[in-house]
Amino acid sequence: MNQVRIGIIGMGNMGTIHAKSLLNEEIEGAKLTAVLEVRKERLEDLQENLGDDIKVFADEDAFLKSGSVDAVLIATPHYDHASLAIKAFKHRLHVLCEKPVGVYTKQVREMNEAAKSSNLTFSVMYNQRTNPVYQKVRDLIQTNELGEIRRINWLITSWYRAQSYYDSGGWRATWAGEGGGVLINQCPHQLDLWQWMTGMMPTRMRAFCYFGKHRNIEVEDDVTAFTEYENGATGVFITSTGEAPGTNRLEISGDRGKIVVEDNKLTFWRLRVPEPEFNKDYKGGFGSPETWKCELPVEGVETGHKGITQNFVDAIRKGTPLLAPGEEGILGLTLSNAMQLSTWEDDWVTFPIDEDLYYHHLQEKIKNSTMVKHNHHIVLNVEGTH
Amino acid sequence: MNQVRIGIIGMGNMGTIHAKSLLNEEIEGAKLTAVLEVRKERLEDLQENLGDDIKVFADEDAFLKSGSVDAVLIATPHYDHASLAIKAFKHRLHVLCEKPVGVYTKQVREMNEAAKSSNLTFSVMYNQRTNPVYQKVRDLIQTNELGEIRRINWLITSWYRAQSYYDSGGWRATWAGEGGGVLINQCPHQLDLWQWMTGMMPTRMRAFCYFGKHRNIEVEDDVTAFTEYENGATGVFITSTGEAPGTNRLEISGDRGKIVVEDNKLTFWRLRVPEPEFNKDYKGGFGSPETWKCELPVEGVETGHKGITQNFVDAIRKGTPLLAPGEEGILGLTLSNAMQLSTWEDDWVTFPIDEDLYYHHLQEKIKNSTMVKHNHHIVLNVEGTH
Repeated sequence: MNQVRIGIIGMGNMGTIHAKSLLNEEIEGAKLTAVLEVRKERLEDLQENLGDDIKVFADEDAFLKSGSVDAVLIATPHYDHASLAIKAFKHRLHVLCEKPVGVYTKQVREMNEAAKSSNLTFSVMYNQRTNPVYQKVRDLIQTNELGEIRRINWLITSWYRAQSYYDSGGWRATWAGEGGGVLINQCPHQLDLWQWMTGMMPTRMRAFCYFGKHRNIEVEDDVTAFTEYENGATGVFITSTGEAPGTNRLEISGDRGKIVVEDNKLTFWRLRVPEPEFNKDYKGGFGSPETWKCELPVEGVETGHKGITQNFVDAIRKGTPLLAPGEEGILGLTLSNAMQLSTWEDDWVTFPIDEDLYYHHLQEKIKNSTMVKHNHHIVLNVEGTH
Repeated sequence: MNQVRIGIIGMGNMGTIHAKSLLNEEIEGAKLTAVLEVRKERLEDLQENLGDDIKVFADEDAFLKSGSVDAVLIATPHYDHASLAIKAFKHRLHVLCEKPVGVYTKQVREMNEAAKSSNLTFSVMYNQRTNPVYQKVRDLIQTNELGEIRRINWLITSWYRAQSYYDSGGWRATWAGEGGGVLINQCPHQLDLWQWMTGMMPTRMRAFCYFGKHRNIEVEDDVTAFTEYENGATGVFITSTGEAPGTNRLEISGDRGKIVVEDNKLTFWRLRVPEPEFNKDYKGGFGSPETWKCELPVEGVETGHKGITQNFVDAIRKGTPLLAPGEEGILGLTLSNAMQLSTWEDDWVTFPIDEDLYYHHLQEKIKNSTMVKHNHHIVLNVEGTH
């Protein structure tokens, strides 16, 4: 394939950003050929801005059947991600899906099955996987430089959002519109990186979500989650959209040392001998293993959204391995679902989670929602966001 | 009183340190006049080392009735702290008690009542309250510079202890000997500072203790605790004796900024306008309050054990207010008891905690203990410990 013809589904905040990259020819081997936008009031403006070379569709079926795209980039509200992806696969279209891949894992499992049987290229916009710092952390863990993981601690409270943010879109921060708050909208990156870097999913979790604690919203805006892993490690994940200035500090402790990432800077402490070995040989009272604070090269630049889109296009054109395979989207989402479920049940959640129970709770939340918002659909300036 | 005559009860690791300070005349207005040591095999050495001016007692009653001391410094294993303090008050002796003030709050409550009715001076060896950094944090909170507290996060995993440490004393890390592990032995300082700096005790807690996870011991050596406060704030406290290199990082977030203490260095971020005010006025999408990273003077030096002892002596001699009143020892201990209790019940613990239930659990642990240790009584070199 000489050029991958891409159609964007959903021309809101993120769809607009992706369209610009394609129109500016920032993605090699790809071009924007169509967009699908269901909000009829936006169609005229879109056609005018995009020009005659880009087809603007309001009808989903017409778009999918048009033959004018080889691949779709899905940037709609979250609930539609999985069903749209499934439809796209049926129409033999490759899929790059914005995060989160869906709202509940039941739905995403179906999408993954459709992707698998289609043999098409399926990727998810986990753009923070392109960050060399997190790639280095993953490297240190995968090559056993850190040793057996003992503790993971991520304080990610730098997702500050004022009430005006929540008021800017009718679907935002509602059970029916997003199916969650900070976990489903802001944190999918960290929830994915958490499992991607460590290669571990919990065996069980106890989480404490607070709904509308800092803002007039019905979904969670403050979360603390505690996890246990099969190897005995534990983890804590803390997030909030109500704190300023927030913190983004990840610490992973292993039996050969410790990694801290704060302000996008990686620090690695390496034990001269692994801790279990020190413990076995040491005969004194208060001693501890000799520790070396190491400066490691962190090479490369974070290519972000464009990097993921380029990788997706390269996978289609050249068979390049995907950095963020779509099928992996379910892992971070499972963590997110588990955090809400543990809170609703006020109890431990064991993995694999009870997907039906989660779905049942979510439907109850939607049914009992009293949050009515005016459907502003303000397109925000999202420069500098993730 | 010209000079306070002090008797030390328990000449183990800490008792020996305190004796040295007194003998070296490092505490103004106080002198060591007697010691009580129940381990008969140590008496001869003690008398030889201390010289003829210091009376060495093996019998508790004889020591308390001797008339040779005005005040006692209790440095025995924890279980005996409260009962010894109660006896000392009965003999009209002032009491400076090593941390923790006791093992279970029921016992400590009785001690506090005895102290109160005695009108004698009662202090606890919370030497980290003399650290100007923590004093500054307390100051920033008490004067509302930080605003309403929203989150407290303390990662205190720098209490590394090898197996040899636990093997060095028969009472160490057993239910019968210490009544706990990292919470009762290493963490009393942080548990105290946690409530002392913030002025807040939780309304409820959910904690996850692991017993003998890293070492061959029966008590907890790894803990994660989650707390809720009346004002809506939450907290996380994480500790371990099995990690290297450990971390000691405290973060307190308020609605006017954020404090971080790491490596004994305080950093304060101040919001130009309080967060609720920003949130009310802001009309944009992704903005957050203007934040100033401030450099604050932190004055004074950490006087440590000697500082607390000096303050205790000054309180007796001159009525100087106590920096660490003994009655406050119960607060940190309550946090510690609550963490174990929540784990044992595998449920939330609400405050005030069920002291009888805690006591019942503890007795069961003691009864069912299979941990038999050889009673080494090795005196460790504790220079540089806390």
